[in-house]
Amino acid sequence: MTDPSDEAGDAPASADDALLRFVHLAGRLKETPRAGWALRGIAHPESVAGHSHRVALLALVLAPRADPPLDPARCVAMALVHDLAEALVGDITPFDGISADEKRRRESDAMRRLAALADDGALLGLWREYDAAETAEARFVKELDKLETVLQASEYGARDDVGHAALGEFWDAAEARLTSAGTRALLDALRRERDGDG
Amino acid sequence: MTDPSDEAGDAPASADDALLRFVHLAGRLKETPRAGWALRGIAHPESVAGHSHRVALLALVLAPRADPPLDPARCVAMALVHDLAEALVGDITPFDGISADEKRRRESDAMRRLAALADDGALLGLWREYDAAETAEARFVKELDKLETVLQASEYGARDDVGHAALGEFWDAAEARLTSAGTRALLDALRRERDGDG
Repeated sequence: MTDPSDEAGDAPASADDALLRFVHLAGRLKETPRAGWALRGIAHPESVAGHSHRVALLALVLAPRADPPLDPARCVAMALVHDLAEALVGDITPFDGISADEKRRRESDAMRRLAALADDGALLGLWREYDAAETAEARFVKELDKLETVLQASEYGARDDVGHAALGEFWDAAEARLTSAGTRALLDALRRERDGDG
Repeated sequence: MTDPSDEAGDAPASADDALLRFVHLAGRLKETPRAGWALRGIAHPESVAGHSHRVALLALVLAPRADPPLDPARCVAMALVHDLAEALVGDITPFDGISADEKRRRESDAMRRLAALADDGALLGLWREYDAAETAEARFVKELDKLETVLQASEYGARDDVGHAALGEFWDAAEARLTSAGTRALLDALRRERDGDG
């Protein structure tokens, strides 16, 4: 866990230097492991950047098929930035002893700093829209976040050294949270595949 | 290097199963190392998915600032899929003894198969637009691909076990290929940072 003030706080010399700092910070997501996997003993788990890339790809493919239609560009952009705050605050899990409110406060503060470095109010707006989950697009991307996670759980669970039983809670979370036709259909196909009926 | 016909060739039972296969294949990019770094002795280099995520973020932030204006949604989408074919054919480098024409043929074939699995002609269109480099958006994303690479070269080069001298060719490539005002400004800031004038 990093205090954002250590890393994004002192004023860069120019707007280009500030944008460069933003881009370096965003690059940390490549080396930020998704904490949920490490907690379950999966060595060398995927990065936050890898996860975000597939969430964005899912948005690109699935948003145009949603009923009623969603704005694909906004879904893709939200997917790209939904975990961006983790570049500063890390991937906080329920096991870190940090309340949901405090997690949200830290992430919101981090996003404010990141958007300020990039001089990009739209970036902050996208994250806030996602966080508030009040638009259909935001709720859909939240489903895609869960869908991408259960996809990865299925891929790790298929490994001999892991097994599906160890990752059951990710399946449960997906069952509870995926409600749109497109995400349910993929979850159903994933379950059939897991159970050998695929 | 994998023959795409091994993995995407036999017909899935349903459209959902085919889409699921597409999504699994896309997930391989998380574990596909960017080959250029490994060739230069960098252990555990970034993945193709991590690279693609930051290219897409750069598109999201920089496309609206381009002059003349570019379509940000198309730039972001192209960034997301620009290396997607590598899920099937791997990251082919000039050191693999494969001609540029043959590389393009393999990647084009892989993208055709991936888009067929996803039943998504737009996906193939985005990749073809990127590959043809005839639109302003495609040329801009090609610059962002080079920019992201030199950013990563700078980050690896700053490590004690690597050094900037080992990665000079990535700087040279960026110097030669970055021509738009936005990407040049970031390259200039990056060079100042490297040289300690940042």
